[in-house]
Amino acid sequence: MSSPPNSEQLADDSLTPERGGISRRKLLGTAGVTAAVVGAAGAGALAGRAAAAANDSSEIHSPVPFRGERQAGIITPQQDRMHLCAFDVTTDSREDVVAMLREWTRMAERMTAAEETVPHGAVGLNPDAPPSDTGEALGLPASALTLTIGFAPSFFIKDGKDRFGIADRKPAALVDLPKFPNETMDPARCGGDICVQACANDPQVAVHAIRNLARVAFGTAAVRYSQLGFGRTSSTTREQSTPRNLFGFKDGTRNLKAEDTDKLNQHVWVPSSDGPDWLTGGTYLITRRIRMRIENWDRTALLEQERVIGRHKGSGAPIGYPEEFDEPDLATRKSDGDPLIDVDAHVRLASAEELGGIEILRRGYNFTDGSDGFGHLDAGLFFIAFVRNPLTHFVPMQAQLARLDALNEYITHTGTAVFACPPGLRENDPSAYWGSTLFG
Amino acid sequence: MSSPPNSEQLADDSLTPERGGISRRKLLGTAGVTAAVVGAAGAGALAGRAAAAANDSSEIHSPVPFRGERQAGIITPQQDRMHLCAFDVTTDSREDVVAMLREWTRMAERMTAAEETVPHGAVGLNPDAPPSDTGEALGLPASALTLTIGFAPSFFIKDGKDRFGIADRKPAALVDLPKFPNETMDPARCGGDICVQACANDPQVAVHAIRNLARVAFGTAAVRYSQLGFGRTSSTTREQSTPRNLFGFKDGTRNLKAEDTDKLNQHVWVPSSDGPDWLTGGTYLITRRIRMRIENWDRTALLEQERVIGRHKGSGAPIGYPEEFDEPDLATRKSDGDPLIDVDAHVRLASAEELGGIEILRRGYNFTDGSDGFGHLDAGLFFIAFVRNPLTHFVPMQAQLARLDALNEYITHTGTAVFACPPGLRENDPSAYWGSTLFG
Repeated sequence: MSSPPNSEQLADDSLTPERGGISRRKLLGTAGVTAAVVGAAGAGALAGRAAAAANDSSEIHSPVPFRGERQAGIITPQQDRMHLCAFDVTTDSREDVVAMLREWTRMAERMTAAEETVPHGAVGLNPDAPPSDTGEALGLPASALTLTIGFAPSFFIKDGKDRFGIADRKPAALVDLPKFPNETMDPARCGGDICVQACANDPQVAVHAIRNLARVAFGTAAVRYSQLGFGRTSSTTREQSTPRNLFGFKDGTRNLKAEDTDKLNQHVWVPSSDGPDWLTGGTYLITRRIRMRIENWDRTALLEQERVIGRHKGSGAPIGYPEEFDEPDLATRKSDGDPLIDVDAHVRLASAEELGGIEILRRGYNFTDGSDGFGHLDAGLFFIAFVRNPLTHFVPMQAQLARLDALNEYITHTGTAVFACPPGLRENDPSAYWGSTLFG
Repeated sequence: MSSPPNSEQLADDSLTPERGGISRRKLLGTAGVTAAVVGAAGAGALAGRAAAAANDSSEIHSPVPFRGERQAGIITPQQDRMHLCAFDVTTDSREDVVAMLREWTRMAERMTAAEETVPHGAVGLNPDAPPSDTGEALGLPASALTLTIGFAPSFFIKDGKDRFGIADRKPAALVDLPKFPNETMDPARCGGDICVQACANDPQVAVHAIRNLARVAFGTAAVRYSQLGFGRTSSTTREQSTPRNLFGFKDGTRNLKAEDTDKLNQHVWVPSSDGPDWLTGGTYLITRRIRMRIENWDRTALLEQERVIGRHKGSGAPIGYPEEFDEPDLATRKSDGDPLIDVDAHVRLASAEELGGIEILRRGYNFTDGSDGFGHLDAGLFFIAFVRNPLTHFVPMQAQLARLDALNEYITHTGTAVFACPPGLRENDPSAYWGSTLFG
């Protein structure tokens, strides 16, 4: 795991005028806010939702260090809300793209520390100029905001063209996913050249961050699509309770966790042996917008729901066992000869045991995007996976699920994208910016 | 103001098996959850977002009493998240509509108390039957969930037809709003026969509630549109801090508050003299989905933004004054003869002073519904007003704003609806249900 700066450092570096920063709190003098820069929360654990209800909630408002060995927002304790945005780069100018990425980096570091995008951003030093921060996060704490950047295949080569002189740096594994069965892809919800994943415990903070990045991108990049996720459906640390997806089941019980250092090295972080150099220590981010046919699901018997998932609905335990974290028993057969966990149950087909040992790090979010126009909610799961290599660590899983998963009767995939996420920016390297190892 | 049952009563009535209830917490035995049924929070104040960060957060997780003189969700301390759904009734059967409303009422009362829709709803008593609760709120506290119902003109008469034998009960003031200038109405986001406004401090709880009501409505009513609001843009009690809209300005500073009993009687609650009887003590709910042209706004100078709003961006104070809650000075002129607050400033045109004394109770929410397909976020403000009479207390305001407001350059209204909201169901009247005074 990474070694983020301790929180005292963060407080010293980011929230004092000496470094050019004025915290949103100080600017407005809202004495009631203690955005909890102190304490170990920045690098530590986010309490589960349930526990958070009982305890002091300062941890879920604290800043998460922007710099470190890894980008934040991957193994960071999963925040409750997400706003992910895919951008199309609208210029062929390498210089403009680099300038945007530099500006984004400066803004991102400030926003994750609960600062405005620039000092005096919303009120400005020149009232005749537009504000440099849109202002809707003024007075709000950091809310554990993380901003994670990724670059798509089309950022390197689009329509056969090496737009920014970096085509030779495209990782071999960075290719769009093949078409799978059971997809209803909407091209407007697929792809994009760059993605920024904003996660926070306050959606206003996540929306503010994306909106300000989009604002300064004008003329260089434009919003292709954006997705709001209102509730997390996975956990990234052992301290977090397991949340539920819109099928009502606990989701992500077997997710890799921040504590699983060896497994993360094996399945999530790109090793130097894989290449290219600029991506070593980084990862790949894969999105799948999964529309759930919740009405069909809701008319399905409990036993069938549990057979399809392979878990009990109430406890989240694997079929036949009492506890959520009991290992799914994929071998045992019932007296009638059928396996305890069905052959096409989701938990079986998604298991490392049935996939040659591959595992993924998930960061999923429930979404509801209004009505589908046919009397139903347009609802589902926005699925994000972090993997070491999409071709070896994701395609085999998705191919198996798309072909066999009993859940397919109740879902269809409507959006997808793949991005390469470089490692984090180091604390002692102020000239580095998002993508600098790519352009350097 | 109403006299809701105190929280001890609520705990006794709703969360013990004696009344047929099993709390979601008890069912799952999640010992870490203390959903905070104790304390005065149910009837009391929700701390502002900033203060909530510093203090114990139990209040924002507590239940709000479902029964009382008024429906909850109107002067209830405004929750941070909203899911509003408009339903089309798809049957002509009065009996079916009444049955649905009875079932909705039972479910709503349970869900606002953090219970499943029926006991053992998600795991069922008969595993061969579909669960009676979809399950995604299992383990979550009440999160101050309120469910507020309203009936549209078309619920009484549609296409000239008295569908349910209640046409003579339609209030004279319950009519669709006229067309105003500066609208870009999407018919799919307008109207509907019934609305349910779900507000909660956890969006998963609000989405779960609407989803379960939609589920049991199958065959009787269907989702026409639904709107997720991620951040509140008004306050309904004096204890709440003023939040910011996506223009970055504090919104709702002059909103009526729960403490303003006389003004609420004058401007919000329908008096017996207005009629009809079944609506006495109720109110009207008006929705306006306001798309913000945030890109244009973001390129506007601070001074111009402040002139358009009539307030300072940082403090929220009216132009020329230091404190947010200073009264806007609509009379004073500057040395050049121009008024301190511009003639077409939003704060002036929306003021009681310029509207013959009328005031409204607002409950607004920021929204972001992905991309608009043209490189921008589809973002804005979902505006909800509660008024005594739409014709006298809303149309004059909207007519003035639509004609003159300087803000019109940066907004367009894309959805609207009007609903009549009956008063609350009384604690001592178990046979009452949503709309029972209408059908009784």
